[in-house]
Amino acid sequence: MKVAVIGTGLIGQAWAIVFARGGCDVALWDGDAAALDRAVALIAGQLDELQAQGLVDDAAALRARLQPCATLEAALAGVAYVQENLPEVLAIKRDIFARLDALAPPGAVLTSSTSSIPASAFTEDLPGRHRCLIAHPVNPPYLVPVVELCGAPWTAADAVQAADALMVRVGQRPVIVKRELEGFILNRLQGALLREAFRLVEQGYVDVDGLDATIRDGLGLRWAFMGPFETIDLNAPGGLADYCGRYGGLYQSIAEEQTSTEPWSPQLVAALDAERRALLPADQLVQRRLWRDKRLMQLARHKREAAQED
Amino acid sequence: MKVAVIGTGLIGQAWAIVFARGGCDVALWDGDAAALDRAVALIAGQLDELQAQGLVDDAAALRARLQPCATLEAALAGVAYVQENLPEVLAIKRDIFARLDALAPPGAVLTSSTSSIPASAFTEDLPGRHRCLIAHPVNPPYLVPVVELCGAPWTAADAVQAADALMVRVGQRPVIVKRELEGFILNRLQGALLREAFRLVEQGYVDVDGLDATIRDGLGLRWAFMGPFETIDLNAPGGLADYCGRYGGLYQSIAEEQTSTEPWSPQLVAALDAERRALLPADQLVQRRLWRDKRLMQLARHKREAAQED
Repeated sequence: MKVAVIGTGLIGQAWAIVFARGGCDVALWDGDAAALDRAVALIAGQLDELQAQGLVDDAAALRARLQPCATLEAALAGVAYVQENLPEVLAIKRDIFARLDALAPPGAVLTSSTSSIPASAFTEDLPGRHRCLIAHPVNPPYLVPVVELCGAPWTAADAVQAADALMVRVGQRPVIVKRELEGFILNRLQGALLREAFRLVEQGYVDVDGLDATIRDGLGLRWAFMGPFETIDLNAPGGLADYCGRYGGLYQSIAEEQTSTEPWSPQLVAALDAERRALLPADQLVQRRLWRDKRLMQLARHKREAAQED
Repeated sequence: MKVAVIGTGLIGQAWAIVFARGGCDVALWDGDAAALDRAVALIAGQLDELQAQGLVDDAAALRARLQPCATLEAALAGVAYVQENLPEVLAIKRDIFARLDALAPPGAVLTSSTSSIPASAFTEDLPGRHRCLIAHPVNPPYLVPVVELCGAPWTAADAVQAADALMVRVGQRPVIVKRELEGFILNRLQGALLREAFRLVEQGYVDVDGLDATIRDGLGLRWAFMGPFETIDLNAPGGLADYCGRYGGLYQSIAEEQTSTEPWSPQLVAALDAERRALLPADQLVQRRLWRDKRLMQLARHKREAAQED
């Protein structure tokens, strides 16, 4: 099966790894030929690193599945699926989707990695608008499996299903978002938690590191292998309904204190940033991101091993 | 160092494991002598299981640190720290704290595991109210390190500091909650996320399993070893302030749609419960909880090994 990755920045590179690891032939195209060359080299280096971490078996074989293409026509020839990763600018999305729809084989599904622009904003006038949808990954998708799939009102169910099936086949965890909404699911959940986190620090109940510890050494442990619903389902003898009976009143009372929508003030953001910079000086951010990526790799391996044991 | 665990239900048993593993002598007392005997047997079994999982080195040696006591006086003799775990009933807390304050050595810190009753509600009239605070664990604390420490307005800073130091010494991760508030930090964060989760399913954007996957195969991975603040700090080149500049508008827009405080309706709870029961029949809840505990053990070991590698 051939797929095309359009736009080979960080997200495009990561998708190429996902598809190659999943057994696909991966055509790569970028409007900037030099960027495409750099991307192929960067992907090869990342595949070696993943092999060193035990997360892919044969980096060279995966590298051989990459087909950098000089033209969009060549990249799209014979593909079943297209993953677009250009900048988050509406005019760019409109332009590239018009070209993709004109050039890709009639049966190919066309997806965008955008996190912020709904498919309805750039596909309405396309003859093939029924085959267009969002496939929003979390960076990097070869370590974080979830992919949010969200069509426009006119997206055909079988296009969503085809994307869903491909994601499962290449080892991702697709989540179908049934109607368009800002932030999809993941960033709305993150936003709800961040708002309370900002509020608790602003009001002086806890400091930044204490709040982070409450998640990373507390709630985040269950959430790393169960979701919030399964967590509460297992936290009362009779399951979720029993849990809501026991703790619904507490959460109702808390919710009534969580309704402020004041924008995060520059003073608050500066204070939080200052706490983070005291914990991690700015000149260590790059190194800490490498640490995070190593930890994500180790956690991915751990979860794979634990799932095999189950 | 001797500590006392007062009330030996599930939470008291788990605390006994934490303190024994942390090198303390652990006096155990329960108003029900038969319950105390059962608790000691259950703790011994749990210690064996932890040894089998590589999480304690010598279960028998830890078992030898447990001192079941027939009287409260014996349990409190010479202790530096008391962890109370009786039922979540205000009158019971008032009664036991009066007894603890009367009987414990003057320098001992007195803590309660309560998740729902602030220290100010049951310590105001005690001569030793300055040494009383909440030490709220997540179950089970020998696998989930975070402990929320929250005093009443009259709790002495050195009592909080002593509890904090003991928690660090026995391998927990204390988080100081600087003023009393309902739900402390952890359940307020959980509540904020749950409210959005319930809303998203209620409004038909996603199903229960899709929402859980968004966390367990997405956000929850980072949150298992970083908190939400460190996560965003590393997700923009310039750190947290840069992140807020880039995405603050998105989160502001989302927040304005997240203000409803309608109670969770019985219909909604029933619908969510039905989805969970389709995923996990009620007769498999017990078995799934054992799976969860095994996964928490494996994750605890993984995190310990990863931290050693750092």
